[in-house]
Amino acid sequence: MAAAKRVHAPALDLQHGKVDMSHGSGGRAMVQLVAELFARHLGNAYLGQGNDGAVLPAPLLAGRPGRLVMSTDSHVVSPLFFPGGDIGSLAVNGTVNDVAMMGATPLYLSAAFILEEGFALAELARIVASMAQAARTAGVPVVSGDTKVVERGKGDGVFISTTGVGVLPQGIDIGGSRARPGDAVLVSGSMGDHGVAVMSRRENLSFEAPIESDTAALNGLVAAMLATGADIRCLRDPTRGGLAATLNEIAAQSGVGMMLREPAIPVKPVVAAACELLGLDPLNVANEGKLIAVCAAADAARLLAAMQAHPLARDAALVGEVIADTHQFVQLSTALGGRRIVDWLAGDQLPRIC
Amino acid sequence: MAAAKRVHAPALDLQHGKVDMSHGSGGRAMVQLVAELFARHLGNAYLGQGNDGAVLPAPLLAGRPGRLVMSTDSHVVSPLFFPGGDIGSLAVNGTVNDVAMMGATPLYLSAAFILEEGFALAELARIVASMAQAARTAGVPVVSGDTKVVERGKGDGVFISTTGVGVLPQGIDIGGSRARPGDAVLVSGSMGDHGVAVMSRRENLSFEAPIESDTAALNGLVAAMLATGADIRCLRDPTRGGLAATLNEIAAQSGVGMMLREPAIPVKPVVAAACELLGLDPLNVANEGKLIAVCAAADAARLLAAMQAHPLARDAALVGEVIADTHQFVQLSTALGGRRIVDWLAGDQLPRIC
Repeated sequence: MAAAKRVHAPALDLQHGKVDMSHGSGGRAMVQLVAELFARHLGNAYLGQGNDGAVLPAPLLAGRPGRLVMSTDSHVVSPLFFPGGDIGSLAVNGTVNDVAMMGATPLYLSAAFILEEGFALAELARIVASMAQAARTAGVPVVSGDTKVVERGKGDGVFISTTGVGVLPQGIDIGGSRARPGDAVLVSGSMGDHGVAVMSRRENLSFEAPIESDTAALNGLVAAMLATGADIRCLRDPTRGGLAATLNEIAAQSGVGMMLREPAIPVKPVVAAACELLGLDPLNVANEGKLIAVCAAADAARLLAAMQAHPLARDAALVGEVIADTHQFVQLSTALGGRRIVDWLAGDQLPRIC
Repeated sequence: MAAAKRVHAPALDLQHGKVDMSHGSGGRAMVQLVAELFARHLGNAYLGQGNDGAVLPAPLLAGRPGRLVMSTDSHVVSPLFFPGGDIGSLAVNGTVNDVAMMGATPLYLSAAFILEEGFALAELARIVASMAQAARTAGVPVVSGDTKVVERGKGDGVFISTTGVGVLPQGIDIGGSRARPGDAVLVSGSMGDHGVAVMSRRENLSFEAPIESDTAALNGLVAAMLATGADIRCLRDPTRGGLAATLNEIAAQSGVGMMLREPAIPVKPVVAAACELLGLDPLNVANEGKLIAVCAAADAARLLAAMQAHPLARDAALVGEVIADTHQFVQLSTALGGRRIVDWLAGDQLPRIC
């Protein structure tokens, strides 16, 4: 749960207000809900870290102190099956990635299923098999599980909540508050593939070229990046809210601005075309197999080369830099020399994308 | 996810079958679903341990090997608020207890919320505040969270999936397969309170005396029990499926039978009366603040005394013993000298009890 930023909206109406779809969007409304309701009650130093996972001391395990990382996500993607993946592979990869984004080695997953009465066992088996395959690929076993069933009309087929636990090697310190002016901003590949794949399937659109979700476990890529010894300040996977929300989160946590070069941001032509049609900006669209890295400028070329050498980041690119900006704006310079501010999603363009 | 036992039902129809409410009951249908679908795909040595939590090596944390325990549960209780608790306190206590039942010290919780569009923020705030209070009482912070929102009619107010992580001190080895003939069977207090409190609220029944859920975190009680040095073989909280399901699970895992004395099993008179009215057996009804312990007979009196000295187990009782039985039956001797078999729930008497 990330820190709030520039929320000019009125405070949540905790007496008469209702949950609306924007509270799940990854945008400002969700940040506000987390800050004003969840953090207000549950707040503690770990929850307040505001990264993809919490870094936790493991005081009882060793003579020297160890650190655990823990991260959780519920998955409610609709439809359950989409080009390139399904809710099962997504639930594994999404949580493996959140642990990996802390620089940690993901070790174990748990999975809790909420099934709707009447859901076909054949579809459930297909989802669980896909989950098992994704867990094998990532090298992270599902070690604990639970199943609950709710009446027809009280759920939607299947929801899967996964939690990941990993260990953080000594000396690694990666987090959203470590970006500094002058740092380089890198992305591991094309933006928007997952969200557009899901939306296309939902709207029954088809395009000339197939659009597939990029869902993938990034723990191997992160290990390769760490092995370079580059000074990596932040790692984050741009899921709900896309690149725009993720960079705004980092800017707010670090108290910096960012300047991106639009032509440098990889977007597949077919995804760009689909976004035009759907009225979306690819920078607001969820990714499920990509990461953003902020690193010391001097290490950027070395880190980029290591990324491009990994099968999951062949199209990695240096897309901008961190700048000093008390307004903490994320800006974009366009091919034509203009500039625009890359803002959070205001409402809820993309419900149930993950 | 516990091991299957004496399932004479035909195999699941994975081609044309559907999820039904019994698959969430904690009874045989659920065990069958776990065995034939989940374990078949996801199976590994950790998931196959069949206890409330998985015991995990933590190889990277220390010179000497540490062990983690991880456990997860989704909570879908209906109604969300019931006498003695709500889904928030239940979600904390249920998962703290699953970790504690391994003999581990629960350290951290994660919580993932699936909210239904239109749910009142005031109720959500009440639930989260209750969760925070339960976490403080248990001494286990919520360190990672997630919120998703689904459309009206695709959820039911709020579902909460919690995952707990704890550490297992050296030398502790507690599990469902360790019961041996001659061992004593103890319960920490009255059976059936939680399930009857929820059902009464659901059916709008009221009784002469109030019936309240027993929801409570048992990590402190477990610590007091471990401190006695008694040889505790198994600890388990009898939630879905109640005492009957839990003892049948242990009997199956250990390859033993059990003989219980019905008059020794604590059931509050008002709960017994409500069960009569609702057509329930208190031994099949869920508890959320009770545990079952199997221990070496020689240590039973000492363990029982320690339990009775703890505020959450004042009514603890020695209710029976483990016997050799190749059929792995759990039997009950009645006050009148008769005997009956205490079986799993066949169908789904108590949907959405936790």
